[in-house]
Amino acid sequence: MTGKSILLNRIPALFRKKRGAPATAGSWLVRVAMLSVLTAAPAMARSSSSPFAFHNNLMPEPARLEVGQGYFLLLPGLTATTDKFHNARLDHAIARAMRQLKEQTGVVVATKVKHGASNGAAFVVSVDGPGAAVQTVIADESYQLEVTSQGIHLHAPAVAGALAGLQTLLQLVQNNGTEYFLPGVSIQDHPRFPWRGLMIDCSRHFIPISKIKQIINGMAAVKLNVLHWHLSDDQGFRIQSKVFPLLTKDGSGGKFYTQQQAKEIVAYAHARGIRVVPEFDVPGHTSSWVVGYPQLASAKGPFHIQDRFGVFNPVLDPARKSTYQFLNKFIGEMVKIFPGPYFNIGGDEVNGVEWRENPRIQAFMRKRHLKNSAALQAYFNRRLLKIVTSYHKRMIGWDEVLVPGLPKSVTIQSWRGYKSLAKAARQGHDGILSSGYYLDHMTRASKYYEVDPVPEGSTLTPDEKKRILGGEACMWSEYVDGTTVDSRIWPRAAAIAERLWSPRSVNNVNDMYRRLHVESLRLASLGLTQISQEWSSLRQMAGAGQLGPLRVLAKTMEPVSWNQRARHANEYKITTHDPLDHWVDALRPDPPFRHDFKLMVARYLQAPRREQASGMKLTKLFEQWIAAEPGVMKMMEHAPLLAQARARPGQLAQLGRIGVAAVSYLSSGEAAPQGWKQKQLAVIDAAAKPVALTQFDVLGPLKRMVESVPENSGG
Amino acid sequence: MTGKSILLNRIPALFRKKRGAPATAGSWLVRVAMLSVLTAAPAMARSSSSPFAFHNNLMPEPARLEVGQGYFLLLPGLTATTDKFHNARLDHAIARAMRQLKEQTGVVVATKVKHGASNGAAFVVSVDGPGAAVQTVIADESYQLEVTSQGIHLHAPAVAGALAGLQTLLQLVQNNGTEYFLPGVSIQDHPRFPWRGLMIDCSRHFIPISKIKQIINGMAAVKLNVLHWHLSDDQGFRIQSKVFPLLTKDGSGGKFYTQQQAKEIVAYAHARGIRVVPEFDVPGHTSSWVVGYPQLASAKGPFHIQDRFGVFNPVLDPARKSTYQFLNKFIGEMVKIFPGPYFNIGGDEVNGVEWRENPRIQAFMRKRHLKNSAALQAYFNRRLLKIVTSYHKRMIGWDEVLVPGLPKSVTIQSWRGYKSLAKAARQGHDGILSSGYYLDHMTRASKYYEVDPVPEGSTLTPDEKKRILGGEACMWSEYVDGTTVDSRIWPRAAAIAERLWSPRSVNNVNDMYRRLHVESLRLASLGLTQISQEWSSLRQMAGAGQLGPLRVLAKTMEPVSWNQRARHANEYKITTHDPLDHWVDALRPDPPFRHDFKLMVARYLQAPRREQASGMKLTKLFEQWIAAEPGVMKMMEHAPLLAQARARPGQLAQLGRIGVAAVSYLSSGEAAPQGWKQKQLAVIDAAAKPVALTQFDVLGPLKRMVESVPENSGG
Repeated sequence: MTGKSILLNRIPALFRKKRGAPATAGSWLVRVAMLSVLTAAPAMARSSSSPFAFHNNLMPEPARLEVGQGYFLLLPGLTATTDKFHNARLDHAIARAMRQLKEQTGVVVATKVKHGASNGAAFVVSVDGPGAAVQTVIADESYQLEVTSQGIHLHAPAVAGALAGLQTLLQLVQNNGTEYFLPGVSIQDHPRFPWRGLMIDCSRHFIPISKIKQIINGMAAVKLNVLHWHLSDDQGFRIQSKVFPLLTKDGSGGKFYTQQQAKEIVAYAHARGIRVVPEFDVPGHTSSWVVGYPQLASAKGPFHIQDRFGVFNPVLDPARKSTYQFLNKFIGEMVKIFPGPYFNIGGDEVNGVEWRENPRIQAFMRKRHLKNSAALQAYFNRRLLKIVTSYHKRMIGWDEVLVPGLPKSVTIQSWRGYKSLAKAARQGHDGILSSGYYLDHMTRASKYYEVDPVPEGSTLTPDEKKRILGGEACMWSEYVDGTTVDSRIWPRAAAIAERLWSPRSVNNVNDMYRRLHVESLRLASLGLTQISQEWSSLRQMAGAGQLGPLRVLAKTMEPVSWNQRARHANEYKITTHDPLDHWVDALRPDPPFRHDFKLMVARYLQAPRREQASGMKLTKLFEQWIAAEPGVMKMMEHAPLLAQARARPGQLAQLGRIGVAAVSYLSSGEAAPQGWKQKQLAVIDAAAKPVALTQFDVLGPLKRMVESVPENSGG
Repeated sequence: MTGKSILLNRIPALFRKKRGAPATAGSWLVRVAMLSVLTAAPAMARSSSSPFAFHNNLMPEPARLEVGQGYFLLLPGLTATTDKFHNARLDHAIARAMRQLKEQTGVVVATKVKHGASNGAAFVVSVDGPGAAVQTVIADESYQLEVTSQGIHLHAPAVAGALAGLQTLLQLVQNNGTEYFLPGVSIQDHPRFPWRGLMIDCSRHFIPISKIKQIINGMAAVKLNVLHWHLSDDQGFRIQSKVFPLLTKDGSGGKFYTQQQAKEIVAYAHARGIRVVPEFDVPGHTSSWVVGYPQLASAKGPFHIQDRFGVFNPVLDPARKSTYQFLNKFIGEMVKIFPGPYFNIGGDEVNGVEWRENPRIQAFMRKRHLKNSAALQAYFNRRLLKIVTSYHKRMIGWDEVLVPGLPKSVTIQSWRGYKSLAKAARQGHDGILSSGYYLDHMTRASKYYEVDPVPEGSTLTPDEKKRILGGEACMWSEYVDGTTVDSRIWPRAAAIAERLWSPRSVNNVNDMYRRLHVESLRLASLGLTQISQEWSSLRQMAGAGQLGPLRVLAKTMEPVSWNQRARHANEYKITTHDPLDHWVDALRPDPPFRHDFKLMVARYLQAPRREQASGMKLTKLFEQWIAAEPGVMKMMEHAPLLAQARARPGQLAQLGRIGVAAVSYLSSGEAAPQGWKQKQLAVIDAAAKPVALTQFDVLGPLKRMVESVPENSGG
């Protein structure tokens, strides 16, 4: 019996049905897209197969994976040997991986790396060379990883690939209850897109340097390779300039990174295979620049850093030579801190108000036949491009910079969407997709997962497709700070990371969620707080009582989407001064329970009278909802910060009672009295109303249950 | 009705009985010792009294506290005004406190401090002057805090007192369900002892700088004021020396603090009212010194840093002039980093082996009539004292340095105990008690709480008593690292902090535990991980399954004491290379459940047939123990790191069944069959055996329950 047929035995009915018959057998080589179906089995099924069988917990999934029959037992003293090239970066990465392996398993593997001949060595890392000196876009991140009962062999043409392979190796570790091992596999992997980024806005809310480092660790774990660091905006200028010290003195409220810290981040990221691209958003979003340097502004001032959010008037003056002299000096200073090949100048959301109201600027425009603000911004961008290029950097800007005549060397980052990106590619520009990957939109991981920088059926030519470098998840920080940011980035960004690394055919949502849960626990072990923060936040709000009932409520709820938040903006105004310690801040977007509950209900509704165990499990769950009410209500008596959720425990209990009744009808096959459904659906609809920017995330499946109940047709 | 009589109404029977009749009324001034009894009521009782009544959650308790009737409502915009002296240290401390207040409550108070006339200001900070420039031992930490419906007034003679008062203010915040407020109080506070320290050993395991900062935040919250930083030992030299770079190059394994980081820590601690005292332990515990500088050693070498624990042979050579020249240069470098008045030279545990085996040193001793190792060490210390004194520092050493003729300027830190300390005081030395405060001994908070540097009945004269400066909790790091250290320090160190700050009469253990629980949650909100780490550690061991059942088990267990660990040392060897991710590392010493369970059982056993509700609560608890078994056993099938606890879920279920049966007999008054008790006690005794350095912490109360069951007398 081959490894493969063992796996086939374990396809649960639910998934098999959806996919139709399993793919024809054939080559021993298993495409990952197939694999993700094969291994979607819940943990329960594990014990039925060989204790050393491969269980796919890789995220992102590799391009090609072949499952072997052997396994490599992890034993104390295991030592990594580099048998070809090595440098400090590689050695440190291996040592880090070995330390992590040791902590993960308790097996005392060696953290010192050996160099030299590999004969007899159990863990060999063969790297051909260092790769590009400063990471370019096309750093070779490919690697091969072979695990047999004899040992582990990681081969990569360049260090960047070895770094990626080490992360895969860590994700491969399994155990059989008494021993840790790596299942026998042969992996040939490379990313689908070379640019897999995460943008962090550190202006609207400052994110401490220690948190940035943790986030970098998380990025490395899921093979994201670009940290796009949004360092200035209307709410704060966040990096020290020695040439222009008033940028932070007057424009940061004291919250900024020193140059030393920024250099540390660049080195820290580079060590982990991640390029740092700084963004200084000009000419708009510049309130924080002009507080200390009003001579840069297009209006008179005085200015102040913004403590609210939106699009503001302050904009740099493109009609003065001194503006370009300033930018030239400033960029000259920054490129010493950020050695990478890219420089992001933002360029989004200029409202043109100050330009229109300034007669000198209007005269400047007439003289140069610049007929509107867009044309003036294009003029500004052309001059800026010369400066950026003079420092041997490639310029990136948001969609707005794409105007006729823009030099092709400028890369477009699209917040507008795939069409805008495709247009740029047709015009010869490189492009990065961010539309659809906004983490602050509180979108579900499954939705991000569907967004593809080069979707199936794209009409771009192969050359144009190559210009789509990849994508970037965006963490805008209107409503996050250092305390809550993890729960907004993780684990959803890992789904985006997979979309950008793995073949397009890796697209099974249920399996993605299964692996996302495992990955989230792994990320937590790196110190990321997307799981533990819920406890801390609820504790902060609730005081010293038992948190159990409140957690039952919290796991059924989530923040509303960005659009809904915008719709309720007036009833819930937030400034940069307000602490983010409200009910909405404690809740996690797309909490794991949401998808689990959906699956449970789907399984049950396939055959409610046969799925008695599922029915009982659901009933138990609904009873917890009912039981939570008194505990939460009592806690609320001493928790002003929970006032916003006051209606919720009662609603959850109602939903629980509906659930209990629905299971009772469905499992017995009895019909409900006439009008029952309508009544229950009304209750569910009432509970659907967002309150304080939060909503239940269990209503859809519950509704489906109610709708499935047979009802007496009157009389 | 006065505030006091409201409080008196709330003394629960359990406590009232133990203390006898409540103290006679009389003065409106309530001694804190009394207060701790008055407010020992469980949270349940809260709703019965005025919604604005004072609830004592202060830790440490203040010297004097008077409860008023009014309260001060916390409203947005509240601003602190300093109306007398102010400096940057005070301003930053106030701003920090206001930020914390804002985060804690969501009420947007102002974080910018006003200076000037206080008329009409709601929150006034009146400080007379800066206090000593560099903190001396007798920094004036006294303060007065008045809260009325009109406002908050904090007065202190020096900044150090204001810092202490701000912490009290934060602990005073309460809410009534919809609003946050400070109850009306008048507090006059000062510490009982001027030296309230925490020693952290960063040599045996390195503790990262970010964790040291978090610990400092925790220290400030409970008014500890000395960080004793144990920076060198056999396992590692932990601070950069620019004069002697091999100390860290060869002696640290790459894990050390840069001078810049150490200076940051000194400044960070100073800002929070905490003095940093560095310790460089000489002449023993110096393996890490002599790896790079073997010329300092008394034996030939080569040397290596130790990866095991205990007392090792390497010891500095006191017979060579060059040793003192080295120390002179080194200390000269270190005093620039540590500006405080004290310098700790360790001086403990010299085994004398290398001295005895070195003929040159033996000749040196004969020539100077030094008849044994102790005499040679005394000689060394006298020369060292001259060096330390030349830098205007006061020398501290452990008990061993106390030999006849030791200059009185040396302060003795006692690991041997109160008697040793009293002896030193009689001889004119200042002293600090550490014996009884060793956190690594895994002792219960209640035991630390009993240890008093100047116990009742001390026969020291008043002058001698003054020489007892205070005490220091010691966190030796054989078995802790940066990940687990919080759970070993907190919250138990807060009980020691209270012993050292509050009047001796503050000694109600039940109330201490009640407040300790609240304080632990507060400390967690500062980022300390003593609560959340349990989850992380269990998760690390257990993989991705549901953690609930495992947590039920974990909360009934604790690490064994230091002595028991020593007894089992052979079956459980640990080196510095081993990850601390075993069952014992996940468990918390003196977990909150232990004392809670003890109280529950005590309450129930007072009148089991009347306390039906308590009986039902206990039964429910025991049923959880029984129910946990299958879940934990299943989890263990995929968790090698849990193998050490394999016997425990079965034992816990057995204990649960015993509990259920005991409640059933006790609540009904029925007698158990003859022999029942003996059988149950045998099961409990079997479960008492430590396994893998862990033990149950619920056995005592369970045993008392079994013993209380009436039994048929045969036939």
